[in-house]
Amino acid sequence: MVVPTLIERKRDGGALAPAEWRELVLAYAGGSVPDYQMSALLMAIVWRGLSGGELDALAEAMLDSGDRLRWDGLDRPVVDKHSTGGVGDKTSLLLAPMLATCGAAVPMMSGRGLGHTGGTLDKLEAIPGFRTSLTLRETTDQVRRIGCAMIGQTPEIAPADKRLYALRDVTATVESIPLIAASIMSKKLAEGLDGLVLDVKTGSGAFLPGETDALELARTMIGLGQSHGCRTVALLTAMDRPLGRAAGNALEVEEAIAGLSGEGPADLMEVTWALGVEMMLVARLASDALEARQRLEESISSGRAREKFGQLIEAQGGNPAVLDDPAALPQADVIEIFNAPRDGVVRRVEPRRIGRAIIELGGGRQTVDDVVDPAVGFVITARPGDTVRAGEPIASIHARTGDAAAGAAHALAEAIEIGEPLAVTPLISRRITA
Amino acid sequence: MVVPTLIERKRDGGALAPAEWRELVLAYAGGSVPDYQMSALLMAIVWRGLSGGELDALAEAMLDSGDRLRWDGLDRPVVDKHSTGGVGDKTSLLLAPMLATCGAAVPMMSGRGLGHTGGTLDKLEAIPGFRTSLTLRETTDQVRRIGCAMIGQTPEIAPADKRLYALRDVTATVESIPLIAASIMSKKLAEGLDGLVLDVKTGSGAFLPGETDALELARTMIGLGQSHGCRTVALLTAMDRPLGRAAGNALEVEEAIAGLSGEGPADLMEVTWALGVEMMLVARLASDALEARQRLEESISSGRAREKFGQLIEAQGGNPAVLDDPAALPQADVIEIFNAPRDGVVRRVEPRRIGRAIIELGGGRQTVDDVVDPAVGFVITARPGDTVRAGEPIASIHARTGDAAAGAAHALAEAIEIGEPLAVTPLISRRITA
Repeated sequence: MVVPTLIERKRDGGALAPAEWRELVLAYAGGSVPDYQMSALLMAIVWRGLSGGELDALAEAMLDSGDRLRWDGLDRPVVDKHSTGGVGDKTSLLLAPMLATCGAAVPMMSGRGLGHTGGTLDKLEAIPGFRTSLTLRETTDQVRRIGCAMIGQTPEIAPADKRLYALRDVTATVESIPLIAASIMSKKLAEGLDGLVLDVKTGSGAFLPGETDALELARTMIGLGQSHGCRTVALLTAMDRPLGRAAGNALEVEEAIAGLSGEGPADLMEVTWALGVEMMLVARLASDALEARQRLEESISSGRAREKFGQLIEAQGGNPAVLDDPAALPQADVIEIFNAPRDGVVRRVEPRRIGRAIIELGGGRQTVDDVVDPAVGFVITARPGDTVRAGEPIASIHARTGDAAAGAAHALAEAIEIGEPLAVTPLISRRITA
Repeated sequence: MVVPTLIERKRDGGALAPAEWRELVLAYAGGSVPDYQMSALLMAIVWRGLSGGELDALAEAMLDSGDRLRWDGLDRPVVDKHSTGGVGDKTSLLLAPMLATCGAAVPMMSGRGLGHTGGTLDKLEAIPGFRTSLTLRETTDQVRRIGCAMIGQTPEIAPADKRLYALRDVTATVESIPLIAASIMSKKLAEGLDGLVLDVKTGSGAFLPGETDALELARTMIGLGQSHGCRTVALLTAMDRPLGRAAGNALEVEEAIAGLSGEGPADLMEVTWALGVEMMLVARLASDALEARQRLEESISSGRAREKFGQLIEAQGGNPAVLDDPAALPQADVIEIFNAPRDGVVRRVEPRRIGRAIIELGGGRQTVDDVVDPAVGFVITARPGDTVRAGEPIASIHARTGDAAAGAAHALAEAIEIGEPLAVTPLISRRITA
């Protein structure tokens, strides 16, 4: 394998053979291909794209660079959900316990906050004691025992992806649909799934804001899933505003618990139901959407999903008292009310601005080494389309200091646009299947 | 400076500001920007190109990453010639002494063989004792004293280019006209030139075979030269066959000495005269081409150019006896005559095949660490358009062993195509000025 020759071929619009992708990816994971050659190749991929065969081979090689979860003898279907990233999206915290109570095995492997978006691992770690770094063996044991686990990417899972992802982040080669798809799917397929539901975000707060790109990403991931024997469907959901009211790690855990208690905000629950129904269907735990929805609603109304979340927290070392007592979650020192600055209709709540304001509050990372403050964030009660009056409370700011809260108020004033009414986009715009 | 943001802008087709190029290139030369970010940026440049302003800024920053030759108080115009690389091209060895005797100062900085092409430094080092690694001070002192010096790129000249060039070589980012132009011109401009003549090769043996690319490269380099106050012109010359008869380091020195003695082959001399005339004109040492040509011819007929070459050899530690005695140059152990395999007209002498055969003989490098055998190579007397008879000697092979000579004969049989006549392309096809 002569690496410059492979880079040259991709640069000139040609294709690498499956065996070449395999050798290259494994050599990179093993350290014998240097970063500077891989980053040139990554930029050539951003430029020229990958053919379907190349994409399959790349994802397969990334998958094979590590281990997979083994489910021998398990009598439940194994399913997961993946979101392309948003602000306020805590659906994973509801869906893992809900699906577990409905008969699925859910080995949910999530990430941390990236850019302006929040991360499921950061949210879970707001629960005192919660441990997200399980071994593969601990993960499968726990899923066999209680039906679900929520973990971070272990070193054994797709190590080539881990190294590639870190390189892409610092070489402006993140924004490539085939690379995004291969990265996501190599990790998800390592979970040994029977079914996967993709929540592909669109709108200003999504990494790929436009519907055309979102659709292409969805279709690319579905193709990879199907060709690996994993039933995969995708929903395109709106990320032109935060999902739910709470944005910030502990605040989102509190809202997820409210949702599991039958008291979630309407938009959060609408997306949760829709994703849950798809998970039930790809898991073949329901024969149609109606039956799936009924069983999911029952998992909430019966209290079983909430109880399952408590089991999950306890199994992973967290304090289950948070279920009944929000004060057991980290609390901000300063809570300030934000009032509508004028009369009018809420036109926009801009998720990128909200996400960046959370990072400025300390609730996300500026650099990989930053420690996240779980207590800070926002609860924004005004939704796009709501009519508000000047001076009416429309949000609360949870901060470490008064100065930080003042800065966050400034950001909120920019993020929440009030004026003449604007058409509100549907929360769920497309359902994409193989 | 956030490097991924700069890479992203170039990736998306935008432009970096001059100050950004400057900071980036100096940081890279200083080691604080890693290779993996620079190689991603280089691939984005191959993709998106550079605007005129970006190219100026990049070349300027590469130039400013190191020192320049200083000519304070010199009463001669400083000129040089640069070739984009070919097989059998020994014009530099004639032009430096010729121009020095005509009143120019010629601080000629050259390279080594690259790919299938030969390098002036390798040719000079075929002269026993010849030292090409002078310091900047030694170079200017020698040029002030005898009018010319022939050296390699010193560590002080454009160190950013040196590091970038090595990176481009292993990341398939060599083939970019603005990067090629910036690399060449940053080194040439560091010589502090008043005038520069570019010999841009076209045809199958050139790095950029097509005339369109060659023209673009010529115009790009001319633009860079002019914007730095260096009068720059280019000739497009044919590299669809080797230049002259000799190809191989010591053999080419011998042919260059023949040329300086008034006995050079017609094609070599035609290109030498043409480049020399342009050098005289950019140096403003002649008022027109006719006067320039007469003075150059006189430098040969008077024996002064030949004598100057002897001074140059002596000044740089070489054995000037090579001027009168070709046996003072390294000699091959095996010399075999190659006969025309059939009757016909020489249609082609393929320079890439000849260049690769020289490398196989040991006269060039497979890897950067290879030691070059100066004695080996070819003298090919048959030119495209010549009528030959089967069994008639048309070349000699100079090799280390009989086996190597046999392999080289095989390569010659492939490289020299004999059959029906084919139109011979003109040696000099275009003259390009600002």
